Amino acid sequence: MLTDGLNINEKGHLTIGGCDTVELAETYGTPLYVMNEEVIRQALRAYVQSMETYYPQGGRVAYASKACCFLEMYRIAAQEGCGADVVSGGELYTALRAGMPAERLYFHGNNKPEGELRMALEAGVGRIVVDNPAELRRLSSIAQDMGSTAAILLRVTPGIDAHTHQFIRTGQIDSKFGLTLENGEALAAAREALSLPGIDLKGFHCHIGSQIFDVDPFAHAADVMLRFMARVRGETGATLTELNLGGGFGIRYTDRDQPKPFGAYMKQVSAVMSQTAAELDFPLPFIILEPGRSVAAPAGITLYTVGAVKSIPGVREYVSVDGGMGDNPRYALYKAAYTVVAANRMREPNTRVMTISGRCCESGDLIQENVPLPDCEHGDILAVLGTGAYNYSMSSNYNRLPRPAVVMVMDGTSRVVVKGETYEDLIRNDV
Amino acid sequence: MLTDGLNINEKGHLTIGGCDTVELAETYGTPLYVMNEEVIRQALRAYVQSMETYYPQGGRVAYASKACCFLEMYRIAAQEGCGADVVSGGELYTALRAGMPAERLYFHGNNKPEGELRMALEAGVGRIVVDNPAELRRLSSIAQDMGSTAAILLRVTPGIDAHTHQFIRTGQIDSKFGLTLENGEALAAAREALSLPGIDLKGFHCHIGSQIFDVDPFAHAADVMLRFMARVRGETGATLTELNLGGGFGIRYTDRDQPKPFGAYMKQVSAVMSQTAAELDFPLPFIILEPGRSVAAPAGITLYTVGAVKSIPGVREYVSVDGGMGDNPRYALYKAAYTVVAANRMREPNTRVMTISGRCCESGDLIQENVPLPDCEHGDILAVLGTGAYNYSMSSNYNRLPRPAVVMVMDGTSRVVVKGETYEDLIRNDV
Repeated sequence: MLTDGLNINEKGHLTIGGCDTVELAETYGTPLYVMNEEVIRQALRAYVQSMETYYPQGGRVAYASKACCFLEMYRIAAQEGCGADVVSGGELYTALRAGMPAERLYFHGNNKPEGELRMALEAGVGRIVVDNPAELRRLSSIAQDMGSTAAILLRVTPGIDAHTHQFIRTGQIDSKFGLTLENGEALAAAREALSLPGIDLKGFHCHIGSQIFDVDPFAHAADVMLRFMARVRGETGATLTELNLGGGFGIRYTDRDQPKPFGAYMKQVSAVMSQTAAELDFPLPFIILEPGRSVAAPAGITLYTVGAVKSIPGVREYVSVDGGMGDNPRYALYKAAYTVVAANRMREPNTRVMTISGRCCESGDLIQENVPLPDCEHGDILAVLGTGAYNYSMSSNYNRLPRPAVVMVMDGTSRVVVKGETYEDLIRNDV
Repeated sequence: MLTDGLNINEKGHLTIGGCDTVELAETYGTPLYVMNEEVIRQALRAYVQSMETYYPQGGRVAYASKACCFLEMYRIAAQEGCGADVVSGGELYTALRAGMPAERLYFHGNNKPEGELRMALEAGVGRIVVDNPAELRRLSSIAQDMGSTAAILLRVTPGIDAHTHQFIRTGQIDSKFGLTLENGEALAAAREALSLPGIDLKGFHCHIGSQIFDVDPFAHAADVMLRFMARVRGETGATLTELNLGGGFGIRYTDRDQPKPFGAYMKQVSAVMSQTAAELDFPLPFIILEPGRSVAAPAGITLYTVGAVKSIPGVREYVSVDGGMGDNPRYALYKAAYTVVAANRMREPNTRVMTISGRCCESGDLIQENVPLPDCEHGDILAVLGTGAYNYSMSSNYNRLPRPAVVMVMDGTSRVVVKGETYEDLIRNDV
């Protein structure tokens, strides 16, 4: 199967975490997000262990929670000894309410409102990742005003093109994020941060993009950043001790995707950093990794019930499902590839090529086009695989569809971790 | 100004419905959706009047509520004598809770779940617009089961290419929506509908797409549909009496868009229909129009506060605002064009070319690229115009950002019609 924890049982049904997906659909209704807790925990552990194995200098795994954000995700990350990357007051609030220790939080964002900076300082978040000089100065004055000191990293754009979709590419110079390395902006900001009251500069952050399969760009970024830290030492005398390498590790949406094991990433990055550190006589920094998609996406699937099957002879065959771009906008946004299976017909041959359409009143509301499937009919259960990231977190109420429940499965048991919205929820804030 | 109801006051501030937008931003905070009630009412009245003026046979305006759906929108539509087009149980529920008379509702959708069909029959919605033969048969059996009769229209795909974005084009043969006219599917369905128990076939529906500026495709569709109704009479003996022509009327997002007045549409459609009706000796049907975007979009603007201004010399200038693809995903989805103005600097010359980036941790989170603006700085208020449709209704909590409030303005007064979400709202359904 495409991802860990998926299997086929004696009824020919897809199972996830030992649970029959057809039974899950019956029990909880569809559309339904299902996440395999074991896969989430294994991914976090693999990152933690890869650091322990290959990077003796130590580091932290901070789950990039924008990938999939609700209370239970932070609880799981905290239990696995990880921190979290939060990008808004809402994520920060959710993390704190889940009991994630504030000191393990990294607060990101290209445009953090003043109220949220105050909230982060009050909560005592571990590091605020400062995006630009204006924010740096604003944070300095807020911290002074609060009689506090902000421990920060500066976000640097290392000028690396990671060969991924333009929407999720962030390392190149034309980015709304971060301080440009090439033109001296990053160095100037470091110099300013070291001199500003209320600011305690700990190190730097970079993030080169998302859904990257090569290890080379990551190793390249680590090398560039370490050289930059040595340059900062040379220019300012300050030996900074932390390097946050962001995330962006590719995952398997279809058979064509071939991600490297997490260990391979850390092994190569560690080797490159050790060599560069020795060359520059610079102490290896404490590193932070921020995996999000690679933790959440492979753990999740979405279950739908087939409504109509529409055959337009010579043109196309449509299978309509009871969800769509409201619960998974990624095909509409990026033409994102997904693997789709008929969860109740896993032993039947794929004899058709179908386009999976959602139920929204919009032609672009497709989940996937031209996928091989067995003969499907009204009432069948379709499963879209690898939907654990950027599905629930990007979901909307478009067409006033309630957002589906999220069910967590492990070892053959299931439990609701996010309740499905009701009609009453939809009008809760209407006056 | 781009749309009605926008002006500039003596302070050089943008006003909407007589309210100073800078004061609205201060009072309610940003991001903020602001809608001009007068513009909504005028648009609905213009549609109603255009029918009265040019189409003496009578008709109904059904507001296509997926464009912008909350209680107050249905109340306004009901007060103006209009009905509504609803596409889900959630929209139906909201419409009913708002007091919209059920008999004025048209229930659409390519894949209506059985529970929602029952809900519609129980509520006594005016017409269920049946999308496909499987749904027709299912509805017949549900209606019989409930001891009820479903008054329906059949959705027909008339084979018209309306020259609009592929995501919002729906009239062509390769569509997930409706019954194909060309290959006889629509006629076969009409024949079946006339014979099925529990089904009362009243007529047909078509919708050729969205954001269409030519009147010709609409007139062409009306002609094709009327000829189809005559053909149904010829083949079955049934003279059906209702024709729902859908919506899709283009609006002005930028100066380049030149929509026709609503009256021009109705005048030409009426002329074509009268001629065809005379030629075929077919009685003019009761018609239904379903404007959504053209009612809601011109009424709305979104207000943001500028955070950082980021200049990458020789590359680009970014203005970060405190919202983004969470409250307006249309640029990320369609590269939709918008007009952006600096609401507190309306009298200043546009000396810069800026890219408006949102605050989400995603490079694709842009509101608009390369727009002319005056010199902007932290704390300025930007207004994006024409955001009344498909912004609030498509909004998400991506990056765990609470969805903004919607404020309705009229004659210099303002009131909240949808409360902004709180952090507590974000975790309400988390377990």
